[in-house]
Amino acid sequence: MAGSSIGDIFKVTTWGESHGEGLGAVIDGCPAGVGLCEEDIQAYLDRRRPGKDAFATSRSEADKCRILSGVFEGRTTGTPISVMVENNDQHSKDYDALKDVYRPSHADFSYEAKYGIRDHRGGGRSSGRETIGRVIAGAVASKILSQKGISFCTYVNSIGDVFCDPGYFEEGYILKNPLCMPDRTAFQVASKRIEELREQKDSVGSSVICVVRGVPAGLGDPVFEKLDANLAKAIFSIGAVKAFEVGDGFSLSMAKGSEANDGFAPDENGNITQITNHSGGIIGGISTGADIVLHVYFKPTPSIASLQKTADRSANAVDLEIKGRHDPVIGPRAAVVVESMAAITLFDAYLKNLGARNE
Amino acid sequence: MAGSSIGDIFKVTTWGESHGEGLGAVIDGCPAGVGLCEEDIQAYLDRRRPGKDAFATSRSEADKCRILSGVFEGRTTGTPISVMVENNDQHSKDYDALKDVYRPSHADFSYEAKYGIRDHRGGGRSSGRETIGRVIAGAVASKILSQKGISFCTYVNSIGDVFCDPGYFEEGYILKNPLCMPDRTAFQVASKRIEELREQKDSVGSSVICVVRGVPAGLGDPVFEKLDANLAKAIFSIGAVKAFEVGDGFSLSMAKGSEANDGFAPDENGNITQITNHSGGIIGGISTGADIVLHVYFKPTPSIASLQKTADRSANAVDLEIKGRHDPVIGPRAAVVVESMAAITLFDAYLKNLGARNE
Amino acid sequence: MAGSSIGDIFKVTTWGESHGEGLGAVIDGCPAGVGLCEEDIQAYLDRRRPGKDAFATSRSEADKCRILSGVFEGRTTGTPISVMVENNDQHSKDYDALKDVYRPSHADFSYEAKYGIRDHRGGGRSSGRETIGRVIAGAVASKILSQKGISFCTYVNSIGDVFCDPGYFEEGYILKNPLCMPDRTAFQVASKRIEELREQKDSVGSSVICVVRGVPAGLGDPVFEKLDANLAKAIFSIGAVKAFEVGDGFSLSMAKGSEANDGFAPDENGNITQITNHSGGIIGGISTGADIVLHVYFKPTPSIASLQKTADRSANAVDLEIKGRHDPVIGPRAAVVVESMAAITLFDAYLKNLGARNE
Amino acid sequence: MAGSSIGDIFKVTTWGESHGEGLGAVIDGCPAGVGLCEEDIQAYLDRRRPGKDAFATSRSEADKCRILSGVFEGRTTGTPISVMVENNDQHSKDYDALKDVYRPSHADFSYEAKYGIRDHRGGGRSSGRETIGRVIAGAVASKILSQKGISFCTYVNSIGDVFCDPGYFEEGYILKNPLCMPDRTAFQVASKRIEELREQKDSVGSSVICVVRGVPAGLGDPVFEKLDANLAKAIFSIGAVKAFEVGDGFSLSMAKGSEANDGFAPDENGNITQITNHSGGIIGGISTGADIVLHVYFKPTPSIASLQKTADRSANAVDLEIKGRHDPVIGPRAAVVVESMAAITLFDAYLKNLGARNE
Repeated sequence: MAGSSIGDIFKVTTWGESHGEGLGAVIDGCPAGVGLCEEDIQAYLDRRRPGKDAFATSRSEADKCRILSGVFEGRTTGTPISVMVENNDQHSKDYDALKDVYRPSHADFSYEAKYGIRDHRGGGRSSGRETIGRVIAGAVASKILSQKGISFCTYVNSIGDVFCDPGYFEEGYILKNPLCMPDRTAFQVASKRIEELREQKDSVGSSVICVVRGVPAGLGDPVFEKLDANLAKAIFSIGAVKAFEVGDGFSLSMAKGSEANDGFAPDENGNITQITNHSGGIIGGISTGADIVLHVYFKPTPSIASLQKTADRSANAVDLEIKGRHDPVIGPRAAVVVESMAAITLFDAYLKNLGARNE
Repeated sequence: MAGSSIGDIFKVTTWGESHGEGLGAVIDGCPAGVGLCEEDIQAYLDRRRPGKDAFATSRSEADKCRILSGVFEGRTTGTPISVMVENNDQHSKDYDALKDVYRPSHADFSYEAKYGIRDHRGGGRSSGRETIGRVIAGAVASKILSQKGISFCTYVNSIGDVFCDPGYFEEGYILKNPLCMPDRTAFQVASKRIEELREQKDSVGSSVICVVRGVPAGLGDPVFEKLDANLAKAIFSIGAVKAFEVGDGFSLSMAKGSEANDGFAPDENGNITQITNHSGGIIGGISTGADIVLHVYFKPTPSIASLQKTADRSANAVDLEIKGRHDPVIGPRAAVVVESMAAITLFDAYLKNLGARNE
Repeated sequence: MAGSSIGDIFKVTTWGESHGEGLGAVIDGCPAGVGLCEEDIQAYLDRRRPGKDAFATSRSEADKCRILSGVFEGRTTGTPISVMVENNDQHSKDYDALKDVYRPSHADFSYEAKYGIRDHRGGGRSSGRETIGRVIAGAVASKILSQKGISFCTYVNSIGDVFCDPGYFEEGYILKNPLCMPDRTAFQVASKRIEELREQKDSVGSSVICVVRGVPAGLGDPVFEKLDANLAKAIFSIGAVKAFEVGDGFSLSMAKGSEANDGFAPDENGNITQITNHSGGIIGGISTGADIVLHVYFKPTPSIASLQKTADRSANAVDLEIKGRHDPVIGPRAAVVVESMAAITLFDAYLKNLGARNE
Repeated sequence: MAGSSIGDIFKVTTWGESHGEGLGAVIDGCPAGVGLCEEDIQAYLDRRRPGKDAFATSRSEADKCRILSGVFEGRTTGTPISVMVENNDQHSKDYDALKDVYRPSHADFSYEAKYGIRDHRGGGRSSGRETIGRVIAGAVASKILSQKGISFCTYVNSIGDVFCDPGYFEEGYILKNPLCMPDRTAFQVASKRIEELREQKDSVGSSVICVVRGVPAGLGDPVFEKLDANLAKAIFSIGAVKAFEVGDGFSLSMAKGSEANDGFAPDENGNITQITNHSGGIIGGISTGADIVLHVYFKPTPSIASLQKTADRSANAVDLEIKGRHDPVIGPRAAVVVESMAAITLFDAYLKNLGARNE
C-alpha cells in the first residue's frame, strides 16, 4: 500500500533511492501566495548535508534542489510543488558485496521479506538519503510557520553518554558546530568520543531535542489525531528513531500527580497560560500555547566496519565487515530532519484547525 | 477536521462522551466471514472496567456492548460493524463546579481554545471512557490476529518508582491482580503505595509493556507508514501517554553500534531470525518476525483531590480541589487499551501488506 | 477495505442493514458551535420515508432518529455526532425464498462474489434503507450551508418518458406531491403511469434534478478533487444511479464551442458572473458562483413482481417472482438522498477551501 | 487542500504546469516485482500526443518520459515510481494577452476566485497537459491489469452529431485514425466537420466509450466506494467532461424494470453470468464479471478563435479572440486519458479487494 505520503491537507509525497536518478518531494496542498524560492529550501538541505569533518560520511553530494512546479513569479500557486535533487556521487560498486547479505539492524531482511526484491545499493529507499524529501517539505512548512510567529530550536542533546548541560545552553552555538550541540564542552567531549569510536570501527547512539515556540493554543484533536500522536508518527517515521517523549515524558511515569500537573494562570495580558510545562505544550492532544518540547532517541548507526555475525539470503552464516561511507552517529545530521517532520506536522495541524469552529 | 477514525483498511471510528447517551465504535473494512459475537467484545471491555477495589474509580458501569450491524448469523459480512455501550451511571452534577475551571493537566483549556465550547461533564470526549470504542475494535482485531497465530502479552511494568523484576515475571498472574502486574511482590509494594497516595489525595504515573508474538516478517513500510511509526501514533493517541519506546528504545541512544546491532542467523528450520532483539521486532519500519516489544509511559492521573492552583474561563486565579471518582493510576486500566491500539494497528498493517507483491 | 465513509474534513460514516437492529451515521469533523437538534434531522428523514400512497413500499417505519453524541446544550461540540434510527417493521420472512437466488439487477450476485457471504434479508447493506445514514448527514450539512446562504431545489424531472415541462415549473409544488414533481400535469400523468405499471407488476426509471443556489466561487480543485468529480462520486454512490450530468451535460457533446461557452460579465455590483450557464456552475473543477445544476438518472426498481429468469447459488436456472414491499419508481424517495449527497460534498468542499490561500 | 492524488492503495500524485519545467507523476503503492520500463509508459504517452494533422494543436512536444525511481533492474521495488516529462515547446508569450482576461468556459475565473493567483501561461495546472501524469500512471496500471486478463477498448463514439454506427464497428481501426473512431465512415464525416469548424474558428463536443473486458466479479464496494462511483469521480476529474454513464445509463431512466433488468444464468462452465448487460458490468457498486461499459461526454474545446464576449480581472467587458494552438475537439486525445483513469481506478479496486474475505 502507498506509504510515501504524510499529512492530510499539507500533504507531502517523497520518492527516490540512494543510488537512483535522484530524490524528491511533491508538496500538495500548500496554500497559494506564499513567497518561495530554491534558496529557502537549499538552506535546509545544507543543514542535512554531511560536514567536511570526521563526524560524517565522505559521500560528497551537492544536493542542489530544483523547483519543477507549483511556483510562479516567486509565489506558490496552490498546485503541487515538485522539487528534485539529483544523485551524483553514487559509489554503487561499494555495495556489490552486500547484495545477498542481511546487514545487522538494517532493513535488508525485513524489506525483502515484504517485497521479495530489494535495491541493495546504499539501502535503496531505506537509506538516510530518503530524508532529502522530508527536508525539502520541512523547509517549506517551516518558512510558512515562521511567518505566523512559530519557530524551532533543534539540537543534539546527547551522544552516547555525553549529555549537554542545560546550565551551559548556548542557542547560537548549535549551528556553529558539526555535532549541533548547544554546549561547547559537551561538543568537545563528544567529538573525542566519536574519534575513538571511529578508530574502534564502531558507532554510537544519540538524542535530539526540538523545541517549538509560538504555537497557538488549540491545534490538534482530542482523539486519534492528537497533536502529539501525529508528532509521534512523524518522528518515528524517521529511520533509527527508537524512543520519543513529549515534555517530561518518561520521568512523568515515576512522578506524582501533584508534581506533574500543570496548572493555569492569567499572564500580564490576562491570557491563560501554563504555570509549569511538564506537559511539553500539549494536553489532551491539543496545544496549550506553551512551548512544545520533543525528545527523540536514535540508535547507533547500524553500519559499522568491525566484524559482525549475520546471515545471507541463502541462510548461510556470514562474517561481515561493512565498507563504505557512513556517519558514526545519526543525531547531528538528523536534527534538521526532526525539525522538518515537526514543521510538516504542525503546519498540517494548523490548516486542519481552520474549520474547527462554525463561523 | 475529522479526527475520530484510525486505520486505512481496517478503519475504526469512535464516538461518544463520558456523560452522553453512550459510546461506540464503527469498524469498517473488517473482512467478511469472521466468527464474531458480543461475548468476544465483552471480554475485552471487562478488562477495561474499573475493579471493585481501592485502585479505581467508584463509577459503576456495566459497559454491556450491543452489536448493531455487520454481523449475520454469527459471522461478519464485510459491512460496518457498529457496536454501542450505553452510559448509565453518570453523576453529571459532580462536574457543575468545574464548568468554568481549567483543571491542571486536563484538556479543558486546550479543548476550549480549539472549539470555543466544551462538554464539561466528566471531560466529555476527552474522558477515559472514550477508550471504550478503542477496546471494542481492539477485541475484534485481536480475535482475528489470534487466528493467524499472533498473540499479546500486556502488563503494567511500573507504578511510580515500583518496577516489576523480570526475574520474577509470571505471565499467568497478570490478569489475576487488579494492577495487571506480572510480579507478585511488585504488585504488593505498588498496592501499598497507591493506598498511601490516595490518603495524600494524590496520584502516580505508570508504564505498560506490550509484547506481540507471532507477527510475520514483512509488515509495515519503509517510509512514512513504518510499522513503529503507526504504533507510535496509535499508542500516543491514548490519553496521558507521554513517552513511547520500541525494543531497547531510550537506552539505544547511549549504546554503541556493536552492542545495539541485531545480526541474523538461520534457525533450525533454515529460516532467518534475529540473533538478539534490541530492535523490538521492527527494523527499517518493517517487522522482522521477532517479538514486537512496546513500552508505554503514562503521566499520573491529573484529577487529584488535593489543593491545586489554576485559572477559570474569566482568567481568575482559582484554588481547586477536584471531587468525583477517579483512578489514582492510569496504567492498570489502560493496559487493555494499549493492547487494543496495537492490535488495530497490526491488523491494519497485515491487510495493507496483502498487495505488497505482484502475484 | 473500508468503504462506508465519505468526505475528508466533514466525514460521514454510515452503518446498518435493512433487517438488522437499526441504521445510523457518525458525522466526524462537523465544526463546533452549530445549533442542532433531532428535529433538524427528522425533517429530512421524513422526506425520505415512503408516503401513504400507491407509489411507495408499504413497509411502515417511523424512522425516528436519536442523537447519541456530539451535541451539548443544543450545539455541536466538534466531536463525532452519532445518530441512530432503529428498525422496527422488518418482515424478514418475506426474504426466505430469496436466500439462494440472485435477483436480476440486484447486488446479490456481485456482493456474494466479493464477500462469499450475504445477509439476504431485504438486501442487507445494499438496501435502499442504507440511505438513512446519508440523509442524516445531509440534514446536518444542509442546515449549515443554509446559514451560509446556500440552498437546494431538488425535484423529480422525469418518470419513464413523462418529463416535467420547464414552462410549468412550480417550486412550491415539489414537496406537496408524493412524486416530488414541480409540474402538476406531469405529476398527474406520471401517477397514472405508475398505477398501470403496478398492475403490470413492473417498475420504471426516473431522473432527478438538483439545483444549488448561492455557492460562492472558488470551491473545488483543479485536478482530481474537482468539485464535479466529487459530486459525481457522491451521486453515483447512491444505488440505482446510472448516469450523471452537470449543467447541459450530455448535450454539450453535440454542441459547438461558440454555443457552449459561458462568457463572463460584470454584474450591477461589479462582480464577475457568467453570462450563460451551460457549465452548470462549475468550470475547471471549481465553482463559479452560478447555480450548480446536477441531473441524476435512476434505473427502474429492480424488484418486480412479474416473472423473471435468473439463477441461484448452485447455478440452477430459476423462474422468479419477487414478493415483498417495493417502490415502483426510485426517484421520488431518492430526491432527498441526492440533495443530501450534494450537501455533504459541498460542505466538505467549503471546509477544504479554508486553507486555499496563505493569509 | 491537497487535490492532486487519486487512489487509496495504488496512489497516483501528479504535478506540473503547461509552461513550467515539466510534468510528472509519483505512483506509490505499486506492488513490487512488476516488469516495467520507459517504453511501457511511452507507448501510452504517444497515444496522448497531438497528431501531425489538422485535428490537433500544433504545439510540438516529444513528451519523452524518464523513470526517476522505483524500478531496479527492470522490476518495480514497491517504492514510489517517479516519472517525469520535460516541457520544451512552450510559447508562453502567446498567453501574455490573456493575463488578466477570464476566457469563457475556462478555469481562469474560478481558479483565481479560489487561489487569488494564477499561472496564466497555457492554463497552468488547468491545462490539458496536466493529463500527462494521468497517462503515465494509467500505463503502469494497465500493464499490470493486462497480466491479469483485463483489457480495454476505448474509442471516440461521437464528434458533434456524427455518431459511430455499431454495425460498422472495427476495433482494429481505432488506433489507425487520428480521431480514434472505430467506424471508417464516421471518421470521414467527422474529419470534414472538424475542418469546417476550424475554418469557422469554432470547436465541437465529443464522446468516448471505454469497454473493459475480463474484470472479475467482486470488485467495488456496496456503499460510498462503489466501483461506478469511483469510476465516475476518476472520469469526471478529467477536464471538459460534463456527463458520464454506465451501461445503458441515461436510457434506463426511461425504461421499465422488465426491460432493464439483467437476469443471471449459468454459462457452459457452470459459472454464473449476466444474460444481458444493461447494467454495464456493475450492479450494486460491485463488478459482475460482465464487460464494464463507460460513456464519457466532453464539451467542445473552450479555446476558439472567433470573437467572444467576456470580462477581465478589473471587471471590464472584453471582446476576445483567442490565439494559440488548440485542439478543435477533445475526445480523440482524451481517449487514452479516459482509459488511464479507468485503469488506475480498476487496479486500485483490485488491490482493495484483496482483504475482502477472511482467509
